[in-house]
Amino acid sequence: MNSTPSEPPPPQEARLDLDRRRRIGMVEAIWGENKNAEQIAAILEHLKEAGELGLVTRVEVSKAEAVAQRLRSGRTRLEHHRQARCLTWGDLPDPDPGLGQVAVLCGGTSDLGVAKEAELALRLHSVATRLLVDVGVAGLHRLLAELESLAQARVLIACAGMEGALPTVLAGLVPQPVIGVPVSVGYGVSAGGLAALHGMLASCAPGLTVVNIDNGYGAAMAALRILRGGPGHHGPDRSGA
Amino acid sequence: MNSTPSEPPPPQEARLDLDRRRRIGMVEAIWGENKNAEQIAAILEHLKEAGELGLVTRVEVSKAEAVAQRLRSGRTRLEHHRQARCLTWGDLPDPDPGLGQVAVLCGGTSDLGVAKEAELALRLHSVATRLLVDVGVAGLHRLLAELESLAQARVLIACAGMEGALPTVLAGLVPQPVIGVPVSVGYGVSAGGLAALHGMLASCAPGLTVVNIDNGYGAAMAALRILRGGPGHHGPDRSGA
Amino acid sequence: MNSTPSEPPPPQEARLDLDRRRRIGMVEAIWGENKNAEQIAAILEHLKEAGELGLVTRVEVSKAEAVAQRLRSGRTRLEHHRQARCLTWGDLPDPDPGLGQVAVLCGGTSDLGVAKEAELALRLHSVATRLLVDVGVAGLHRLLAELESLAQARVLIACAGMEGALPTVLAGLVPQPVIGVPVSVGYGVSAGGLAALHGMLASCAPGLTVVNIDNGYGAAMAALRILRGGPGHHGPDRSGA
Amino acid sequence: MNSTPSEPPPPQEARLDLDRRRRIGMVEAIWGENKNAEQIAAILEHLKEAGELGLVTRVEVSKAEAVAQRLRSGRTRLEHHRQARCLTWGDLPDPDPGLGQVAVLCGGTSDLGVAKEAELALRLHSVATRLLVDVGVAGLHRLLAELESLAQARVLIACAGMEGALPTVLAGLVPQPVIGVPVSVGYGVSAGGLAALHGMLASCAPGLTVVNIDNGYGAAMAALRILRGGPGHHGPDRSGA
Amino acid sequence: MNSTPSEPPPPQEARLDLDRRRRIGMVEAIWGENKNAEQIAAILEHLKEAGELGLVTRVEVSKAEAVAQRLRSGRTRLEHHRQARCLTWGDLPDPDPGLGQVAVLCGGTSDLGVAKEAELALRLHSVATRLLVDVGVAGLHRLLAELESLAQARVLIACAGMEGALPTVLAGLVPQPVIGVPVSVGYGVSAGGLAALHGMLASCAPGLTVVNIDNGYGAAMAALRILRGGPGHHGPDRSGA
Amino acid sequence: MNSTPSEPPPPQEARLDLDRRRRIGMVEAIWGENKNAEQIAAILEHLKEAGELGLVTRVEVSKAEAVAQRLRSGRTRLEHHRQARCLTWGDLPDPDPGLGQVAVLCGGTSDLGVAKEAELALRLHSVATRLLVDVGVAGLHRLLAELESLAQARVLIACAGMEGALPTVLAGLVPQPVIGVPVSVGYGVSAGGLAALHGMLASCAPGLTVVNIDNGYGAAMAALRILRGGPGHHGPDRSGA
Amino acid sequence: MNSTPSEPPPPQEARLDLDRRRRIGMVEAIWGENKNAEQIAAILEHLKEAGELGLVTRVEVSKAEAVAQRLRSGRTRLEHHRQARCLTWGDLPDPDPGLGQVAVLCGGTSDLGVAKEAELALRLHSVATRLLVDVGVAGLHRLLAELESLAQARVLIACAGMEGALPTVLAGLVPQPVIGVPVSVGYGVSAGGLAALHGMLASCAPGLTVVNIDNGYGAAMAALRILRGGPGHHGPDRSGA
Amino acid sequence: MNSTPSEPPPPQEARLDLDRRRRIGMVEAIWGENKNAEQIAAILEHLKEAGELGLVTRVEVSKAEAVAQRLRSGRTRLEHHRQARCLTWGDLPDPDPGLGQVAVLCGGTSDLGVAKEAELALRLHSVATRLLVDVGVAGLHRLLAELESLAQARVLIACAGMEGALPTVLAGLVPQPVIGVPVSVGYGVSAGGLAALHGMLASCAPGLTVVNIDNGYGAAMAALRILRGGPGHHGPDRSGA
Repeated sequence: MNSTPSEPPPPQEARLDLDRRRRIGMVEAIWGENKNAEQIAAILEHLKEAGELGLVTRVEVSKAEAVAQRLRSGRTRLEHHRQARCLTWGDLPDPDPGLGQVAVLCGGTSDLGVAKEAELALRLHSVATRLLVDVGVAGLHRLLAELESLAQARVLIACAGMEGALPTVLAGLVPQPVIGVPVSVGYGVSAGGLAALHGMLASCAPGLTVVNIDNGYGAAMAALRILRGGPGHHGPDRSGA
Repeated sequence: MNSTPSEPPPPQEARLDLDRRRRIGMVEAIWGENKNAEQIAAILEHLKEAGELGLVTRVEVSKAEAVAQRLRSGRTRLEHHRQARCLTWGDLPDPDPGLGQVAVLCGGTSDLGVAKEAELALRLHSVATRLLVDVGVAGLHRLLAELESLAQARVLIACAGMEGALPTVLAGLVPQPVIGVPVSVGYGVSAGGLAALHGMLASCAPGLTVVNIDNGYGAAMAALRILRGGPGHHGPDRSGA
Repeated sequence: MNSTPSEPPPPQEARLDLDRRRRIGMVEAIWGENKNAEQIAAILEHLKEAGELGLVTRVEVSKAEAVAQRLRSGRTRLEHHRQARCLTWGDLPDPDPGLGQVAVLCGGTSDLGVAKEAELALRLHSVATRLLVDVGVAGLHRLLAELESLAQARVLIACAGMEGALPTVLAGLVPQPVIGVPVSVGYGVSAGGLAALHGMLASCAPGLTVVNIDNGYGAAMAALRILRGGPGHHGPDRSGA
Repeated sequence: MNSTPSEPPPPQEARLDLDRRRRIGMVEAIWGENKNAEQIAAILEHLKEAGELGLVTRVEVSKAEAVAQRLRSGRTRLEHHRQARCLTWGDLPDPDPGLGQVAVLCGGTSDLGVAKEAELALRLHSVATRLLVDVGVAGLHRLLAELESLAQARVLIACAGMEGALPTVLAGLVPQPVIGVPVSVGYGVSAGGLAALHGMLASCAPGLTVVNIDNGYGAAMAALRILRGGPGHHGPDRSGA
Repeated sequence: MNSTPSEPPPPQEARLDLDRRRRIGMVEAIWGENKNAEQIAAILEHLKEAGELGLVTRVEVSKAEAVAQRLRSGRTRLEHHRQARCLTWGDLPDPDPGLGQVAVLCGGTSDLGVAKEAELALRLHSVATRLLVDVGVAGLHRLLAELESLAQARVLIACAGMEGALPTVLAGLVPQPVIGVPVSVGYGVSAGGLAALHGMLASCAPGLTVVNIDNGYGAAMAALRILRGGPGHHGPDRSGA
Repeated sequence: MNSTPSEPPPPQEARLDLDRRRRIGMVEAIWGENKNAEQIAAILEHLKEAGELGLVTRVEVSKAEAVAQRLRSGRTRLEHHRQARCLTWGDLPDPDPGLGQVAVLCGGTSDLGVAKEAELALRLHSVATRLLVDVGVAGLHRLLAELESLAQARVLIACAGMEGALPTVLAGLVPQPVIGVPVSVGYGVSAGGLAALHGMLASCAPGLTVVNIDNGYGAAMAALRILRGGPGHHGPDRSGA
Repeated sequence: MNSTPSEPPPPQEARLDLDRRRRIGMVEAIWGENKNAEQIAAILEHLKEAGELGLVTRVEVSKAEAVAQRLRSGRTRLEHHRQARCLTWGDLPDPDPGLGQVAVLCGGTSDLGVAKEAELALRLHSVATRLLVDVGVAGLHRLLAELESLAQARVLIACAGMEGALPTVLAGLVPQPVIGVPVSVGYGVSAGGLAALHGMLASCAPGLTVVNIDNGYGAAMAALRILRGGPGHHGPDRSGA
Repeated sequence: MNSTPSEPPPPQEARLDLDRRRRIGMVEAIWGENKNAEQIAAILEHLKEAGELGLVTRVEVSKAEAVAQRLRSGRTRLEHHRQARCLTWGDLPDPDPGLGQVAVLCGGTSDLGVAKEAELALRLHSVATRLLVDVGVAGLHRLLAELESLAQARVLIACAGMEGALPTVLAGLVPQPVIGVPVSVGYGVSAGGLAALHGMLASCAPGLTVVNIDNGYGAAMAALRILRGGPGHHGPDRSGA
């Protein structure tokens, strides 16, 4: 059998949206799930040349190691974040206190991966975060006990699987922007996160917005758009890398 | 054009499950939505002959009036309950204090019809009820304020549309049986009540059970099964009509 | 036939979430679709007593007129907004320039109702809005021509039916928060707005958030949460009515 | 490649809902499917310190062994129940005859795992159970032959996959509370258990309630709520561990 | 405004599948739901010319009357069957005893329309039928009491809405061919008949076959195919009209 | 009650995509379903000023008449096409023989409306069409008899409801481009046209393409793109109006 | 870790529906997918004792071997049928010519497994079969060429994945009973077989019946019910094993 | 255990649709996903004997190797195309300049496999292609920069996952035929490609057609039908192999 040679990273990678930071102030995340190690490594090298940080989501340990072996730019820091299932490429910046804090809440240990992805994506853009786990609505007292401390956050990201009621309860209690992230944790009618997604969209609490299931990165970028919108943060060009 | 004559109530009505009360202790409700006035009237006459009460659900005012005109048994009381959208046939019994009270809760005025159907079905079986409206989870303080009074109820029926989080929050707070009734109130992803149904089934609160969307009657009968199960209530034969 | 008397507005209306403005700074909107004129009028009278503005969504002309006939508080201004399909109760406040402007975009005339509901809900909370219609993605030049003027807005609300691509394209072009509102306009696979909803959630543009189908009010409240979050707007208590 | 260190059990585990037994009288089950062995072991140690029994559902043999290796509290009994796919932590209490018996029925060998999870969860709360397998509706005589013996049970839990008709037939024959558990056994339209779930919810038998697909634990807790509700069982505080 | 003239019955009606009786021995039923009275009348006239009987399904009284007014062939008998919601055109043949009997069962009055459509379609093909109503599975004794009499039927058609368990229970009790017809009677998860359809397809009873929701005509034609297949009935050409 | 005045046609109508003909050579169709008569009339007047033909789809007789009453440009021909449910505005051009013929096929009278919409949209762009009705796959001989004549068509549009098998069978028999249009005719699983849509997408015939359910206009525009693509038809600018 | 001992085959296996052959004349097939080798072996031993043949569906090679190792009844023939993915236990009977032939058709090699399961289940009940592969509708001539030979069959079973049009085309051409079996072969909208199922149910060909996706056994049992129904085959008791 | 012998390639393979090239001018692709290596090899040998090229889609490296080992016709070139996941059998022809070029676009590296399958299928039929990757709509400038060069293509195939907006934007910008191919890349609501499919079908851009999810081969064949339809390409018989 003949076989097509191991194809080189395709030239079209030159079409990466490097203009994105200038336009909307965000680092383009590489969605790692449907890409192989060669493709990811090629993209990271390309980002490096362009002087950009890199964030690759949905990368398990074994693929992370395969990427590491293929990278030429040895001096750039490649880090795999196990719980967040993400790779970062380059040194993460320090938090910028002027941007304010984002609180990331989740109902239980099973939602932790998505919450960590959101935290990491914010950290990459110099945003400070605070994580609260195990504040699910089946034991309300745990959430009620944190209400005062939550007043410090400018934006709240609430990750929840199963019936996804946490963001609804939260948005009924606090005045800040609340972004719901449905988590694909569950079984039966909640398998895949659709029940949580629909629960959040159908919420009777006013002003709750939602992102796709498991989309911690998306919630983080939505929070970033909000944080930068205040006076003194007139757009993307002030975000250093 | 020839046309088939207005057909008489078919003889098979004789096959009504009149044995049901003996077997499981419940009056058979007539589901009125897909039946016309002739069919409903024929069934009610038949129940009358058998000495049974009658409950017809999902009957609007105009159909109720059409049924009334067709009934021969003029001395039996026929009553239309507008909010519950139900017809009752015969005198409702007094509550039996020994059975205990059932609390029926709902999130808002829009869920009222389903809650009233549940109340009426219980009243038909001599069960006392208490109704709490406007205790939705977007304003938790209203529910928390009622917690103490809810301890009086032996069973709680929680009706909710939209995201349907009320039964979940409730079941996390009280030890009694909680029966969730999704309500087909909502729009977009919550239209038809499916989001509420899935939210209740996916609930992270332990021991919450659920009935079909808008099935106030079913929740009432489930509560009745529970109430009769305690010592001193050894089954259906003690329920008088 | 006996019939239950025309029941008075139930006492539970006293449980309206009047504490909401203090807690999260928003006027509670009354969802009018599944309520009858008696119920709506009773709630509006109650809001009046509490000194609150009222907003009732999803009210057609005929129901609006029926509500008007039932209201006692004749001096309070009741206005029906035909395109937005909303009733307002009380005098709308002037825009507060300090809050900033919200741009509301939609793809075509068919999406106008939802966009108008969003505008009205913002106006009720003193927020200035700007409406752009007919900027759908099948004729991109119309949207590209408005990019510069959109820089004035602090938040963008993009309403779209059919495939719902407008918010995706928009969020790839501007750095501000973008809230997508799927509109239940379409047929076949887009009937009911689900294709638009899924298209927005699945968006490859980072940081786009979404609300339920046709939920113009919800998008407005999400924008309000964002507007108030900046320095000088420390929460809900500064919103006058 | 750098890698984040093997992270210690997060401090938030301190937020386990240990108050649950006092509030609603139930041991919190740990849903093991989306948790790794480290996380489960950490939670079990924490429960031990709090003097609680532990129940972890959805744990296969290999994960059970990995948990066992990580546990410090060697003297506490850790048992893996193969058919139920559960771990228990601590000595199971003896049945309390005063609570009454729960009958657990299932249609065939394929539903056995879910039935066993329900039995185990009840045993953990001192409830006696009786298991009946192979009483599916395609051979009705097997179920009819057991009707008399079923009169002993105070609550019936009926697990069924495929078309899920068992609970419907059962609820038409007996007066006690019947809880349906759809089982994710089947193929084609019944794959995942949705056909069984819908069949149970749509049931024409009055007063049948339902829990999520495969949720044996949930059905058990619903039964427990019922058992405790009778006279002489005034709530959760009487349940010893 | 100009308007296209009331268009005459299009010439393509000449393409009616009049060859069908020769090929597969069945009269083509006209599905009346999406056709107007002109179209139906034109098709009936055409059938008349070809010497065929006509059956139009899903025709309400008012449309039936409009069809009657447009028909020229006054001497041919046009009959509207109210419960079956069908029009027949021509004299129905007498039953052919050699074909054997088909039993048509349904769970309740709400399923009657579909059962009657099946009966009528069989009668049009000279097949004797027997109707059993109110034999739903929530009161099994009614069905069990008929088992012996059902042995007379060569084929059984079982119509059921809600959870649709009747055909499953039936196919577990009798050896003949059983054809399940899901009925679009129900609400919530059973609205539209999908729960019943899935329940029948997922059935654990061996050898149950199913037709589309509400398709009484289709079930009848399937029974006809079976009846004609026996010795002495070698195909369609022996069916007289 | 105050009411917002009858709002004038909004200024944004100026943003109609009049550039479309230059860019892609097509007249923009106005989707009439969710627009009222005022909105449609305003758009048509605007098109008139721009020298464009107008096509409004999904307009019933009564709305067509309301539009007619509101139009000022009395000399422009407004025509309502009853079967196609469309309004045209302006004189339809003669067919351009150089573009070639499009065959529009459908399975039965119920699919006629969608087929007629496709024909009309093509006629508006000077394309000759040929209509074949009643060539459904349950009587194959009718389609096979037309195979030779179909060789004249450059593109085939096949409209089908129910199981939607017509385009599959067709694309297995002819070499030309075949565009499938699912039709929302059917009931049960085929209600709304989804079964037909999925059947066409899943087709085992190679090279069949599909448009949205009932989208006759879309299929016509796809055919137009194909017709213009041949030598001598280098793009949109040659299409006269 | 303690572990529950390898549990013996549960005693409830004694409740196998051995009465089935007497009642409806069919061997109960064991659905092997969700059972392990111990459970299957225990059931087979039990069938042996009762003098029954055994058929286990959905068994891959490795599980078949594990079952073989556990069986004590060494002299009984255990055979694994690779393409049909079935185990048979006992000697298959010779075909009974009096029952007539069943034709099993499928569209392509990918549907072969389901077709073979149907053939095997019929063979187990002494029914002769004939298999036709590669008669899909994208190349109609192959099916048309077989029409004459198909007249020999008393029943036709048509297996098809993708759009599932084969049974529709077939039922339009032949007068015998046609049973459609959707096959879970496909991708995108046809993944899992749902498009094929819906296509068959929605079929415009009269009298086509359908079984669950991949249910070759069910189609075979439906054919058996039909075959036995003719004169001279008065029920199940004449089927020898 | 006895086992059925490794069955030889079944004789029915003789029924391959070899007539297809004469009829519709296309090589039949073998869908490799649900076939094993023996089956694929047998089909390829058969194609070879008939003098045909072969294309097998959805073949991973390991299955490709297993096929290679089973092929007897050693001199025929068998090639595995890794990115396209396809096997070709025979020498690919040179592009025929007279047919014109097809542009294949995709949003990112994850869509590459589907795009490559389309390219390969076209190459097999002598069609020249051009590939553009990374032209997703979240960075519109990349697509706008290619508009001029796209004018060279006679047909455009646009592959997109996630929200699938690329074909919509494209069809709003160019006059040629645009074929959308949804790609099963995504997660949450876009998992499996359904959101992309619906987005394309719901598109507000006129004349966009769609094929099944991941169906690169189907899109290629649709393009081929179009290319051959122009003057000088009167059908399939001119396509040389």
